Amino acid sequence: MKIALGQMEITPGRPDLNTQTMHKMIDQALSDKTSIIIFPEMAVPGYLLGDLWEQEAFLRDCEEFGRLIIESSTDICIMFGNIAVDWEKHNNDGRVRKYNAFFAAYNGQLLGGDNFPYPYRIKTLQPNYREFDDTRHFYSLRQLAAELNVNVETLLQPVQLNLPTGSLNIGCILCEDGWTDDYPVKPIAAIRKNSPVDLFINISSSPYTLGKNNKRNRIFSKQARETQVPLIYVNTTGLQNNGKTVYTFDGVSTVYNGNGDITHYCEPFSDELKIIDLDLSRQAALTAPVIPPNDQDIGSIYQAIHYGIARFTHSLGIKKVVVGISGGIDSALAAAIYAKVLGPENVLLVNMPSTYNSQTTKDLAYQLAENLKCLYTVIPIQEIVDCTIQQINTSQIKDLATNEVFQLSVSPFTAENIQARDRSSRILAGVAAAFGGVFTCNANKSELSVGYSTLYGDQAGFLAALADLWKHQVYDLSRYVNEQIYGREVIPQATIDIVPSAELSFDQAVDEGKGDPLHYPYHDYLFRAFVEYWRKATPEDILIWYKQDVLEQKLGCRPGIVRQLFTTPAEFIADLEKWWKLYTGMAVAKRIQAPPVLAVSRRAYGFDHRESQNSVYFTANYLKLKDELLGNKRE
Amino acid sequence: MKIALGQMEITPGRPDLNTQTMHKMIDQALSDKTSIIIFPEMAVPGYLLGDLWEQEAFLRDCEEFGRLIIESSTDICIMFGNIAVDWEKHNNDGRVRKYNAFFAAYNGQLLGGDNFPYPYRIKTLQPNYREFDDTRHFYSLRQLAAELNVNVETLLQPVQLNLPTGSLNIGCILCEDGWTDDYPVKPIAAIRKNSPVDLFINISSSPYTLGKNNKRNRIFSKQARETQVPLIYVNTTGLQNNGKTVYTFDGVSTVYNGNGDITHYCEPFSDELKIIDLDLSRQAALTAPVIPPNDQDIGSIYQAIHYGIARFTHSLGIKKVVVGISGGIDSALAAAIYAKVLGPENVLLVNMPSTYNSQTTKDLAYQLAENLKCLYTVIPIQEIVDCTIQQINTSQIKDLATNEVFQLSVSPFTAENIQARDRSSRILAGVAAAFGGVFTCNANKSELSVGYSTLYGDQAGFLAALADLWKHQVYDLSRYVNEQIYGREVIPQATIDIVPSAELSFDQAVDEGKGDPLHYPYHDYLFRAFVEYWRKATPEDILIWYKQDVLEQKLGCRPGIVRQLFTTPAEFIADLEKWWKLYTGMAVAKRIQAPPVLAVSRRAYGFDHRESQNSVYFTANYLKLKDELLGNKRE
Repeated sequence: MKIALGQMEITPGRPDLNTQTMHKMIDQALSDKTSIIIFPEMAVPGYLLGDLWEQEAFLRDCEEFGRLIIESSTDICIMFGNIAVDWEKHNNDGRVRKYNAFFAAYNGQLLGGDNFPYPYRIKTLQPNYREFDDTRHFYSLRQLAAELNVNVETLLQPVQLNLPTGSLNIGCILCEDGWTDDYPVKPIAAIRKNSPVDLFINISSSPYTLGKNNKRNRIFSKQARETQVPLIYVNTTGLQNNGKTVYTFDGVSTVYNGNGDITHYCEPFSDELKIIDLDLSRQAALTAPVIPPNDQDIGSIYQAIHYGIARFTHSLGIKKVVVGISGGIDSALAAAIYAKVLGPENVLLVNMPSTYNSQTTKDLAYQLAENLKCLYTVIPIQEIVDCTIQQINTSQIKDLATNEVFQLSVSPFTAENIQARDRSSRILAGVAAAFGGVFTCNANKSELSVGYSTLYGDQAGFLAALADLWKHQVYDLSRYVNEQIYGREVIPQATIDIVPSAELSFDQAVDEGKGDPLHYPYHDYLFRAFVEYWRKATPEDILIWYKQDVLEQKLGCRPGIVRQLFTTPAEFIADLEKWWKLYTGMAVAKRIQAPPVLAVSRRAYGFDHRESQNSVYFTANYLKLKDELLGNKRE
Repeated sequence: MKIALGQMEITPGRPDLNTQTMHKMIDQALSDKTSIIIFPEMAVPGYLLGDLWEQEAFLRDCEEFGRLIIESSTDICIMFGNIAVDWEKHNNDGRVRKYNAFFAAYNGQLLGGDNFPYPYRIKTLQPNYREFDDTRHFYSLRQLAAELNVNVETLLQPVQLNLPTGSLNIGCILCEDGWTDDYPVKPIAAIRKNSPVDLFINISSSPYTLGKNNKRNRIFSKQARETQVPLIYVNTTGLQNNGKTVYTFDGVSTVYNGNGDITHYCEPFSDELKIIDLDLSRQAALTAPVIPPNDQDIGSIYQAIHYGIARFTHSLGIKKVVVGISGGIDSALAAAIYAKVLGPENVLLVNMPSTYNSQTTKDLAYQLAENLKCLYTVIPIQEIVDCTIQQINTSQIKDLATNEVFQLSVSPFTAENIQARDRSSRILAGVAAAFGGVFTCNANKSELSVGYSTLYGDQAGFLAALADLWKHQVYDLSRYVNEQIYGREVIPQATIDIVPSAELSFDQAVDEGKGDPLHYPYHDYLFRAFVEYWRKATPEDILIWYKQDVLEQKLGCRPGIVRQLFTTPAEFIADLEKWWKLYTGMAVAKRIQAPPVLAVSRRAYGFDHRESQNSVYFTANYLKLKDELLGNKRE
C-alpha cells in the first residue's frame, strides 16, 4: 500500500496558502495511485499563532478551507491537522470550544465518528511548557473526557479506514500524544489496548531544537517495537514564532516499522512529498533500516540558523540586510551566514570605528568584507559621539522651582553606551532604511544572559539570529562556516584568535590583550546552568556544588578552571553575585526589549523562558552557605 | 469574632520581605486579640514570577519561610497562600509537583488534612487566559482528582477550625475558584453541598483592570446570597509583571454578609490590616451595607497609573526620570503624572526641537514645564540629524565583488525616523544616564496598535505607562489631571486643543491644522474592536457591520462618523486594509521590542495579548464581501 508523507511548509496564519500546498501534494499523490496522504498537525491554520485563535472569523475561515480539503478526498484518504470548532460549547475561558484535531477524510466523508463524539480525533496531551501554549487555546481530550464523565482511555479508539483493498485500523495521534513520559495517559498504549491496530500515525508541528530528533527516534522506535505496529511520524517544515522567539521546523518525517527500525525519513528542512510502500501484512517490514542524520552537532545548528534566517526574511519580505561589523567574531559570523543566505550583493557591511577601535580590528573588518565579497562601507562615529557628549554636558538645565541652572556630566561608562547607540540607532537604522532593508542584531546568548550589550545599541536589530548560541558555540560555528560552508577562511583566523572585546574604551584595547569581563570558558557554562538546566540552577546550587568540589563536573566546563579564575571563595562569590544580579536584574529589562531570538537550544530566551522584572534575590540557604564559606558569623 | 484582613503588598520573588510583612501584621492582629488573620493568594512567593518556579532552590526557600509563618500561629489562625510542593510527584512537564495552595495554621499545626490528601487546600480552577499562566506551573485540584480517580467535587471539603469559642467550618478557595461562570466545577457550591459551612474565604492575587471590582462584587455577592454564608475576599496590593506587561494589584479586600451585602472593604491600592468583628451566629449581619468605590471611571484609571508608576520605579530603585516633551498631549500627560509621583525636582523635561517643530509647541513645552516646576532643558537635534543624513548620503559603498562604488539616499520618510531616533536613542538615553535616571516612553494604545511610532525612537523608554490608554482616554485623563489632581491648568489648554501631530515634516505642521493620519474618534474604536473585544473583530466582522449599517453601534463610536470620514465603500475599505496591515504587520515587530506596558484595560498589549509576527491575512469571506461592496466580479 502506498502512503504519502506530506512534509510541507506550513505558513502560520495562512490557510489559503497552506491548503494550496496541500491540494498540489494531493494531486501528485493521486497521480501516483497513493492510498493515503498524511499532512502535519495544524496543517491548515499553522500552530504558533498567539491569540489569533480568538478571531472567530479566522476559525470559520479555517473550517471552510478544511472542508475543501475533505471534499477533494475522492479515491484517497487524506489525513491532516486543523482546528476543529464546536460552536455549541465553550472553553474554560468562555470562548468558543476549539480542538487541536486530526481529520481523516475518504471519498468526501470524515472517518472515525462511529466510535467517538466527533468525526475527528482530538489531541489528548497538550504541552504547556517551554514555547507551547496549547492549554490556553485548545480543549484536550482529557478535558472532554472529564466533561463527558468517562475515562479518557475509553475515548482512545482507532479510526477505521475501508479501502477497496481492505480495512485498516489506524491509531491517529497528535504530536505530544507520542511524548508520554510525564503524563498519566499513554495514548498509543490505550488505543492498542482497546483494539487491534494496523498502523499508528503521529502528525506533528514539532519545532527543531538541538538533539530533539535523536531523542524522538529513541522514544518512537520503542513505541513501535512495544506495540509491534508500524508508526508514521509526519512533521512540518517552515518557520513559526511566538513573537519573541522564532522556531524552525525541520520536518524529518519518519517511518518506523513494527520492529522499531527506521525505514524511511525525509530530509531535514526540505519540503517533500515522500511516497512509501508499506506492507502492513508483515509486522517486521523487509525494508532495511536506515540511519537518520545526527541533529546534535554543529552542522545541524548551522542548518537550522541558515534555514531560520532564510524563512524569516522571506516571510517578512526582507531581501537586504545591513550588518555592523567590528572585526570581532559575532558580527563576522553573522555577516558570513547572511551573505550565504541572501547573497553577498544583498548584504551591506558597515564598519563604524571610534577612537577606541584598533587598526587591527578595522583591518579585520575589511578583510572579512573582502573575503565575502559583500557591499562595504566605513562610517566613523567619533565626531558625532563627541558632539552628543558635549551637547549633554553643556545643556543648561533649569530648575523651574528655584530658577537654578546646572549641567550634567557624561561618565566614561555612559560614553561607552553612547557609542553603541550611535552605531545602531543613529547609523545602522538609517543606513538600513536607505538601503531598503533591515539591520541585524549579532548578540550571543552569553551577552544576552547578563545584558552585556547596550539597549538601542548593539542589542538592537530585526532578528537576533545568534542569540541562542553561547560564545563557545559562536567560535565552533565560525570554524565550521570557514571549513565546511565556504571551504576557505572567510572569517579571518585573527578574528577567531583575538581577545573578544567591545572596544568601547582604552580598557578594552585588543592589542594589549584587554577585552570582555566575561571568561567565556567558565561563564558560558555558569549561565547555561541558570537558564537551560531542566532544574534551573541558582547561586544556592552553585555554592553547594562549589563547596562539594563538583562544580566543573555539574556545569560541564573544563576541570581546574574555577580555581584558576578564583583563588579564594570570596573572589568566587563576588563573581557569582555580580553576574546573578545582572542576569536577574538589568538583563531582564534588556531582554524585554530585545529583538526576536532564533531558537536552536532546548531553552531560548523569550517566550520559551518567561521572566518577570523583579528584584534580585538570594535564598536564605544561599546566604547561610555564603557565610559558612566566608567564615562569617551571623547572629 | 475578630477577623483580620491582611491586605498586604506582595513583592514578587521576595519571600523574605513578604513574610516580614506578614509577621508584622500577625503581631498586630495578636495584640488586638484577633482569632483569624487572612493573607492573599501566593502571599509568600508572589504570583507573576515567570519561570522562576523552575528554580527548586526558590521552592525550598518558600517552603521554609512558610514554615516560619505556620510556627507563629500560636493563639491565632493564620490563613495564607503559598506554593506547596510534593517532592514525590511531578507535573505534566516532568518537573516537581507544585500546587497553588491555601494554608490554614493554628497553634503550629496545619488544618484540613483530615478530609483531604494534603494538609492544605489546592486551587481548583486555574486561569490560562489573558496574563494568567497558572496551568504552566501549577497542578490543579481537577488534575489531582483525575490522578486519584475521584470526582473533584468530593475533594471540595471545608476546613474545620476549632477555636476556644467553638468550631467553624470554613470553605477555603483561591481567586479563580470564585469566578466559575465558564467552568463545569463550582467550588463554592460543591463545598456547601458537601458540608455545612460557616464562612467562605477567597484569597486572591487579582490584578486591577478597569471595571473588574464592579463585576466581582456582583458575582461574589450572589455567591454569598445563594449560600447564605458570609464570604471574605482578601486580595493583594502592589505590582507584579510578566515582563512585557505590568499589573497593579488594588486589594479592595471585601466582606460580604450572608445576604450578599458588602459590609466592609479595604481602600484600593492601600496596605491595610483591617480587623472586623464578624457575628457568624446571624446569617444576615447587622452591619449596614457599604458602597465600595466605582472602579470604572477616569479617576480609577489615574489611581492605577499613579500607583503603577510609583511601585514600578520603587521596585527598580529608580528615583529620577527624563521625559521628552514635544508640546503635545501624550508627553504632557506623562510629565504631569511623573512629576506627581516622583516630585518635580526629580523629573527632567527635555524639549528637542528640529526645523519642523512650531513655535507654538515649543512654547507649550516650556509652559508645561513652568506649570509643573520641573527641571527643564532644550536640546535641539537638527544639526546632528543633518549630519546623520549627510553621513549616510555621502558614504562610499563599495561592492567588493565588482569594485563598483555607490551611495545611498535618505528618503523623507527615513528622515522622519532619523529624527525620532535621534531624540530618544541619542539624546534622551544619554541624558537619562547622566541624570542618574531613566527616560519614559509616552506612547498611547492607538499608536502602539498600528506602530505609529519609531522603534528606538519615540517607542523607546523604560516603561510605557500610558500605552494601555486610547487617545481619547489620554485626553480625558489630561483634563482629569488638571481639574482633580492639580486643581489648575498644568497641561496647557492649547496642548489639549491643538491637532495631534508628530511634527516630523512640514506635512505635519500644527499651525496649519495638519497632524496625525489617525482620526482618533473613529480609529480608537476600530482598533479597540481588534484587540479588546472578547470575540476579536477582524476586517470580515467590520465589513459585515458596515454593510449592515451597525458599525458605529458595534464599535461604540459617534454615530455618523463613518460616513463623514469615508464617502464611498472604496475609501472605507482602503482605510480598513491600511490599518489592518499595520496592526498585524509592522506594528507586531515594533511591539516585540516595545517597553513594558502598564495595564489598565481588560486587554493590554504584551503578555496579555500574545501575538506572532506572521504575514498579513484577510479571510476568504472578507475578500468576497469586499468584492460585493466594490461591485467587483470574481471568476
